[in-house]
Amino acid sequence: MMLAVLLICTVCVLNAGGKPVVDEDPVCGYEACPIVGVDTLNVHLISHSHDDVGWLKTVDEYYFQDVQNILSSVVNALNQNPDRRFVQVETAFFKKWWVQQSDRVKQTVQNLVNNGQLEFINAAWSMNDEAAVHYQSTIDQFTLGLRFIQDNLGKCARPKVAWQIDPFGHSREQASISAQMGFDSMFFGRLDFRDHNRRLHDKAMELLWRGSANLGNASDIFTSVLYNRYSNPGGFCFDIACNDQVIIDDEESPDYNLETRVKNLANYLKTQAKYYPTNNILVTMGDDFRYQAAMIQYMNLDLLIKGFEEFEHTYQDKRIKLFYSTPSCYTKAVNDYVIANNSNLELKTDDFFPYADNPNTYWTGYFTSRAASKHFERQGNTLLQVAKQLAVDAQESYDNAAINSLKEIMGVMQHHDAITGTEKQHVANNYHFLLSKAVKNVNDEAGQILSTLISGTDENFEFDSCLTANVSACSQTQGDKFTVVVYNPLSHKVTAPISLPTYDKTNWHILDPDDNTVDYQIENSLTDFSYVDDAQTSKTTIQFSAKDVPAMGFKVYRVEANALQHKIKKPPNPRVLVGYDDTSFEISEETGLLQAVTMNGVRLEITQDFQYYSSQDSSGAYIFVPVHDQISRIANGPISTTLVTGSVSQGVLQDFGSWGKQFIKVYNDDRSFIEFDWIIGPLDISDGVGKEVISKFTTSLATNGEFYTDSNGRELLKRTRNSRPDYDYSDQEPISGNYYPVTTRIVVRDASQDIELAIITDRSEGGASINDGEIELMVHRACQHDDGRGVGENLNEQEYGTGNRIRGKHFLVVGPTSGNGEKSLAAIERDVAQRKSVQAWSFVTSKDVSGSLNTLQFSGLRSDVPDNVNILTLEPWDDGTVLLRLEHTLEKGEDENLSQEVTVDVSELFTLFTITELQETTLGANMLLEENVRLQWPGSASNDKVSPIKRDVADLTITLAPMQIRTFLAKITYT
Amino acid sequence: MMLAVLLICTVCVLNAGGKPVVDEDPVCGYEACPIVGVDTLNVHLISHSHDDVGWLKTVDEYYFQDVQNILSSVVNALNQNPDRRFVQVETAFFKKWWVQQSDRVKQTVQNLVNNGQLEFINAAWSMNDEAAVHYQSTIDQFTLGLRFIQDNLGKCARPKVAWQIDPFGHSREQASISAQMGFDSMFFGRLDFRDHNRRLHDKAMELLWRGSANLGNASDIFTSVLYNRYSNPGGFCFDIACNDQVIIDDEESPDYNLETRVKNLANYLKTQAKYYPTNNILVTMGDDFRYQAAMIQYMNLDLLIKGFEEFEHTYQDKRIKLFYSTPSCYTKAVNDYVIANNSNLELKTDDFFPYADNPNTYWTGYFTSRAASKHFERQGNTLLQVAKQLAVDAQESYDNAAINSLKEIMGVMQHHDAITGTEKQHVANNYHFLLSKAVKNVNDEAGQILSTLISGTDENFEFDSCLTANVSACSQTQGDKFTVVVYNPLSHKVTAPISLPTYDKTNWHILDPDDNTVDYQIENSLTDFSYVDDAQTSKTTIQFSAKDVPAMGFKVYRVEANALQHKIKKPPNPRVLVGYDDTSFEISEETGLLQAVTMNGVRLEITQDFQYYSSQDSSGAYIFVPVHDQISRIANGPISTTLVTGSVSQGVLQDFGSWGKQFIKVYNDDRSFIEFDWIIGPLDISDGVGKEVISKFTTSLATNGEFYTDSNGRELLKRTRNSRPDYDYSDQEPISGNYYPVTTRIVVRDASQDIELAIITDRSEGGASINDGEIELMVHRACQHDDGRGVGENLNEQEYGTGNRIRGKHFLVVGPTSGNGEKSLAAIERDVAQRKSVQAWSFVTSKDVSGSLNTLQFSGLRSDVPDNVNILTLEPWDDGTVLLRLEHTLEKGEDENLSQEVTVDVSELFTLFTITELQETTLGANMLLEENVRLQWPGSASNDKVSPIKRDVADLTITLAPMQIRTFLAKITYT
Repeated sequence: MMLAVLLICTVCVLNAGGKPVVDEDPVCGYEACPIVGVDTLNVHLISHSHDDVGWLKTVDEYYFQDVQNILSSVVNALNQNPDRRFVQVETAFFKKWWVQQSDRVKQTVQNLVNNGQLEFINAAWSMNDEAAVHYQSTIDQFTLGLRFIQDNLGKCARPKVAWQIDPFGHSREQASISAQMGFDSMFFGRLDFRDHNRRLHDKAMELLWRGSANLGNASDIFTSVLYNRYSNPGGFCFDIACNDQVIIDDEESPDYNLETRVKNLANYLKTQAKYYPTNNILVTMGDDFRYQAAMIQYMNLDLLIKGFEEFEHTYQDKRIKLFYSTPSCYTKAVNDYVIANNSNLELKTDDFFPYADNPNTYWTGYFTSRAASKHFERQGNTLLQVAKQLAVDAQESYDNAAINSLKEIMGVMQHHDAITGTEKQHVANNYHFLLSKAVKNVNDEAGQILSTLISGTDENFEFDSCLTANVSACSQTQGDKFTVVVYNPLSHKVTAPISLPTYDKTNWHILDPDDNTVDYQIENSLTDFSYVDDAQTSKTTIQFSAKDVPAMGFKVYRVEANALQHKIKKPPNPRVLVGYDDTSFEISEETGLLQAVTMNGVRLEITQDFQYYSSQDSSGAYIFVPVHDQISRIANGPISTTLVTGSVSQGVLQDFGSWGKQFIKVYNDDRSFIEFDWIIGPLDISDGVGKEVISKFTTSLATNGEFYTDSNGRELLKRTRNSRPDYDYSDQEPISGNYYPVTTRIVVRDASQDIELAIITDRSEGGASINDGEIELMVHRACQHDDGRGVGENLNEQEYGTGNRIRGKHFLVVGPTSGNGEKSLAAIERDVAQRKSVQAWSFVTSKDVSGSLNTLQFSGLRSDVPDNVNILTLEPWDDGTVLLRLEHTLEKGEDENLSQEVTVDVSELFTLFTITELQETTLGANMLLEENVRLQWPGSASNDKVSPIKRDVADLTITLAPMQIRTFLAKITYT
Repeated sequence: MMLAVLLICTVCVLNAGGKPVVDEDPVCGYEACPIVGVDTLNVHLISHSHDDVGWLKTVDEYYFQDVQNILSSVVNALNQNPDRRFVQVETAFFKKWWVQQSDRVKQTVQNLVNNGQLEFINAAWSMNDEAAVHYQSTIDQFTLGLRFIQDNLGKCARPKVAWQIDPFGHSREQASISAQMGFDSMFFGRLDFRDHNRRLHDKAMELLWRGSANLGNASDIFTSVLYNRYSNPGGFCFDIACNDQVIIDDEESPDYNLETRVKNLANYLKTQAKYYPTNNILVTMGDDFRYQAAMIQYMNLDLLIKGFEEFEHTYQDKRIKLFYSTPSCYTKAVNDYVIANNSNLELKTDDFFPYADNPNTYWTGYFTSRAASKHFERQGNTLLQVAKQLAVDAQESYDNAAINSLKEIMGVMQHHDAITGTEKQHVANNYHFLLSKAVKNVNDEAGQILSTLISGTDENFEFDSCLTANVSACSQTQGDKFTVVVYNPLSHKVTAPISLPTYDKTNWHILDPDDNTVDYQIENSLTDFSYVDDAQTSKTTIQFSAKDVPAMGFKVYRVEANALQHKIKKPPNPRVLVGYDDTSFEISEETGLLQAVTMNGVRLEITQDFQYYSSQDSSGAYIFVPVHDQISRIANGPISTTLVTGSVSQGVLQDFGSWGKQFIKVYNDDRSFIEFDWIIGPLDISDGVGKEVISKFTTSLATNGEFYTDSNGRELLKRTRNSRPDYDYSDQEPISGNYYPVTTRIVVRDASQDIELAIITDRSEGGASINDGEIELMVHRACQHDDGRGVGENLNEQEYGTGNRIRGKHFLVVGPTSGNGEKSLAAIERDVAQRKSVQAWSFVTSKDVSGSLNTLQFSGLRSDVPDNVNILTLEPWDDGTVLLRLEHTLEKGEDENLSQEVTVDVSELFTLFTITELQETTLGANMLLEENVRLQWPGSASNDKVSPIKRDVADLTITLAPMQIRTFLAKITYT
């Protein structure tokens, strides 16, 4: 009787507060792993469920219909047998579930975590995509997820494994980030079929992946390619959703099948074992949204394990032994093996893009699919950074509901069926709804903080973010008078072009914080339509420059209509040369297209045109398959052009016909790029053929089949046309097989002429250089067919009334690779890319706030930080602590000066507070760096990057090597 | 901390032995019901899963793939919230699960039973069919299920409710049996659509059903027709198998729907409430194989209940209140209401056959579907009775593995998709496999006991039951010498015709126990084919009479081939008159068909022919839809006949062509019937049209549109063509709408001539009297289409090599209704029916056992029991206790003498043991009769049957009223 009570009570003791009790020193982590044999083939069964944070259903549909069942039933099933294990991945779902649970269930979960039965892996908010995401958002969504797990379940729940099983290709930056999180391994399922075959053949399914060309072995991560993507072995799905034969061990039953099923699985395992380098193999026992009735799976797995004890099967004289395990336990077992055997793993230094699952199906369409979503997500990130900084300024705590809901939906947006555009339309609508709602609330929250900062009182200026300004709608700018606060979340002052739709007013007076009159320019709005229900569209747009907006600070601009009728300048006839002496472009009188650009002392002949591929039927949300040898212009013949000039910018408006318009311009106050402000759509697919539109830049540069694309906005990777570093490439798809994700920029170089051309994007797009001297970026897609990869809908936003036109911007930078004398071209590109990824944010109000404008400008920084340093993260963390991330923004060798190591003293850096102590953490901020002990792997010897050392908390200087990001919990005192 | 421990321990205490601990005095039964309001509309939510014991999957497929999940997950879910309830029905499944469970789970179940959360209802081995089952097997399968529950979970688990939700029509005998089990109510879902509508209109969905015309209110049972068959309200299926919207009460979610869903359900409930007579309504929350992930259902139901608390809805000023309940709690609530309001319920005295769900779809096909299965099941029952009696003789315990497995498969066979023939073919094959296996084992077990009884030693004669004698195959009778033991399980001696296939031998010598030579007769085997793999078929069959085989005893016959060549008599030309002076039949020289019969002093002109209906496409396993006005003979023109006479029988063999043969005969030693031994098939449906073959008897009797069929082998019910007692009938289907189940007999009467004609069957068949003077019985069916009621296969056994021919027997009895002077015709019919339902069983061995034949005959009874008494059950029960059931075999008024009350003294009745004490129980033997307190209902006043009274255990006399069955646990001492 006592025994029973004790037994039970190991899983049921509650403490007074209803919070799980954590043992002083629980045996978790690798110590809680099952013991593996040396003389056995150790089969690690991994019970997992792949829970998309939205795809065919919305997040809430999945949660309420599926995921809550998974978590509840798994916890029950684990509790019934201490051998059973489960890995939990998506914290977006876990949080929804956790907050619903009773104290008793929470305590049970804590116990299951502490004894290793329930292991969190990845544990980011979602399992992010790796092509279209920006590293800042990836880091943020890991930070969010990891903190939730840490706060609620403590150290034993800390993940050690990157589990990116489903994303459609894998970025090197993700590997680097994973390593910097302190993870010991990464697992994934999808890679090019040729690469897969080559790796099977070479026993190279497991490798050492170096995630960074700059960080050395600090970015190395053991990587294992899953054998069967992430599914159970065929015929061994015991989920309630499956119809596979269940295991029947009742020998009396005519349906008894244990011996046969064991034999069948043994055959499968023997085959798998051939391809893996150690006496351990990992078998995923799960799939999408499995374990909704977990007991069923576990009961059958229990029987299988028992069956392998009863019926002996061997592989190479090694008895096959099955047991419940986890990816981290598998990692440890493999590590033990390779250390003991001093085995070397292949070292990989590039990435896993693009992903083809067949010679004709490249998953390169999703680099661009739902281009409007991809832009909205980038706006969400910008606002989030603004709001987090303002929250610190306002001495807010971490528990800010509005900001947290934006963090959460941004975490969701990183999901590999969200930002990718591979979800069903109603799910996309739901993402947009949730993001809009969060943005609205954060706008209000940030607006209040800004109002307080500006007014010095608690007056609320009722700022609006004018998110629909890109379609010429903003309710706050329709009157005679409005106030614009331009907030710059970057660590250096920026000059930002401000463009706001106005209505019927052409004569204005704009004052900057210093009461200086600001030049402006009125243009016809590029858009004359609206999908915004509650706002009218404006026919005209006012443009001005917000010059030198302070770092992490703002400037207030007062805009007022003048009584005088503004004379609209009749534009002169199109001229050949547009812009300014140092930066200009030329338009062909014959075609109306761009014909040359001049910048950084270089004049490059270049044309730009919008063209489209006709889709084959297999082209869809994921996959891009153009009809070969067929590319068409969207315009018929020459295009008409209009010169638009003023004090703000010089530009030419191009009319490409019913499918598109483009404004090419150079800003007077920022001549570091030429802007291509385009609007494309609706695409006409009424002929039954999908259309995939590209913006194509053509030069005669000798680029030698090579081009460069960024990895999630950070390091640049060289791409060679029709070639892969890792495996023999066969080029049945000359276009789509050469597409790569372009998160922020794509670059070509002509070494002989010393000319470099870069196009920087305002969102992720697919890009390529199909012929030497060319760059193309896919900007919009509409397909007539589903591509058979699960989503079950063709990608055709046109049907839904929204998203049928895409407005976006490209920023062209050209020059000698060495740059303009001050900076290398790479440094210039990085600067533009950063300013265009995280743009200054305009808060606008039509409220008469003139009496309350006490602080018209503000800088968050008391002093400048070096040019190659950016404060990546500043947000409230704990009482008296903020989370601070600094990054070195350049790679090694990119710039003679800026690529050097740099040191920042943060003690007196911030205007509103003083940092008194610094504790360095891993990138995800869930572990002190000094606690981060990673497994060592042969072949991953330390090179030029130092291993983490214990810092003195009073040391307030931070040294950054190229591309390094360092994360700190900073103790602060408000001044 | 203490509280938590205590809380947990209420569900986890184990005792030392690992058996659940039962509280001394748990609050269960009606006391554990939720309290219902007087001023509320009380909505009783019934969580249930309808688990077919085989249908689309085999029993084991269902158990392992589905049911084990249901039970395990339900127990978990109930344990999580003490408000939740569940009802468990099929003990076949429950046992499979229970024996797998740990002591801890068992204790949890016991606690859930004791507090009323888990309620067993019906709890028979399966939810039996009500059309084709024989009452003996129904009672047996209830006894089996109830005992398992009683043994393992005690009194709190005792069911109070009959839950026959799915059978396709409902028999009056089932109501009677349910009442006699001590049940307080019966629930079902299927009844004629007109009846359903009429009852809705008249608020007569709830009624008082009198299950017997003989037993008075002891057979009354409150009956409730479920509103939505047995499914959840449309749109409110929260099962993992469903796609209905789950309840989302998170007001932050864009998918929040609690208020709307509550409103929708409220509307449904208001409609339902209109049709039910009290302020209680029962809502089934379940369906086939639901609750496999029970948590999901319960979580949503929890929310719904909460929702109704949050959002008020009313019906007739009564607030709608939802709560978890059970059918017994509902029954109690309704009973309280009708007692308090003195409401009267409609009294019903007939049954619910046939069931039509549409004007053209009568579920009358399944009365005959898989006619071979239906016969095999009847054989199983006979062997089971034989074996149970022998087990008592051999002082065996209840725990006899072989007998228990036969009990179990017989319980399975009663299931409403087993004996009905409405299962998939592979499931039918599995039933047959399991039944064959059990029969084989019980044959061996009974054979050993018989061997011991006969030899007086432990020698085993290796008896075989020659189950395939009907297809002329028996391995034991292929040699020159074999021994036959004929065992009679009835309580009166019987003369049994023995018919065994032999091979190439025509001259035999047969000795009875008294060493008298027995007459025999060699006939050509009726069958010249075989579907028996491991046996050869015989061309000849030996026939003899086993005369006066003792009650519950046996006789041994020694059969040996003679050297002399037996002369096969050339049969003379067909004669008009065949048989004996008192019992004979006449064959038409012109047609070869029967033209008259003479018996019991009556000569009746009667023809018999095999005809067939062509099926419409909607005819299938369940449903019989003939093409109207189209009936064909299976023979073309006159049929050829052969006279076959001998010392055993006089008969005529009729050849109906490729579809059939029939042997009409009269036995010299048993002239109480004329036998029609037919073989029909294979049916030719190669024209794409199903065929449904009947045996049709045509007379000129003036039967006035009326005929009679038995209810599960017991009381006779009057049927009136194209009419129903309870509702207005519309006769769009003049044939199938007049079909009724014939378990043992169908009768027509001509009152003016005082002639009664009965056809007794050897299995259940569909039967009708479509025109006055006619009787037809459907004997075989083959359909070309699935009938759309779920099974998803057309009924066509031909494809599978087995069952394509059906061999069966009809037994004709005719005479004045008053009978032959000794017995009424009804009494004669009952005697024949009883002997043909539970036939003497032949055990055969070819082993040379001549030296061991010490006891050549044996009677289990020391003295005769009265003619109207049968010992229905004799089987081992507990140590020193046997289960004893006696039945009065006649109805009131059927026979002047035999329909009287009768008393039996059992003290010295049995040969091998003496009864010392009797404890009377309810029919299911799971409750002492003195403990049986049933709810009282207005309108169910006691009439001529006495209420149970406490008997003196020493009283060894048993008085039986007509049709009464009394059940006793008898303490015995072996003599």
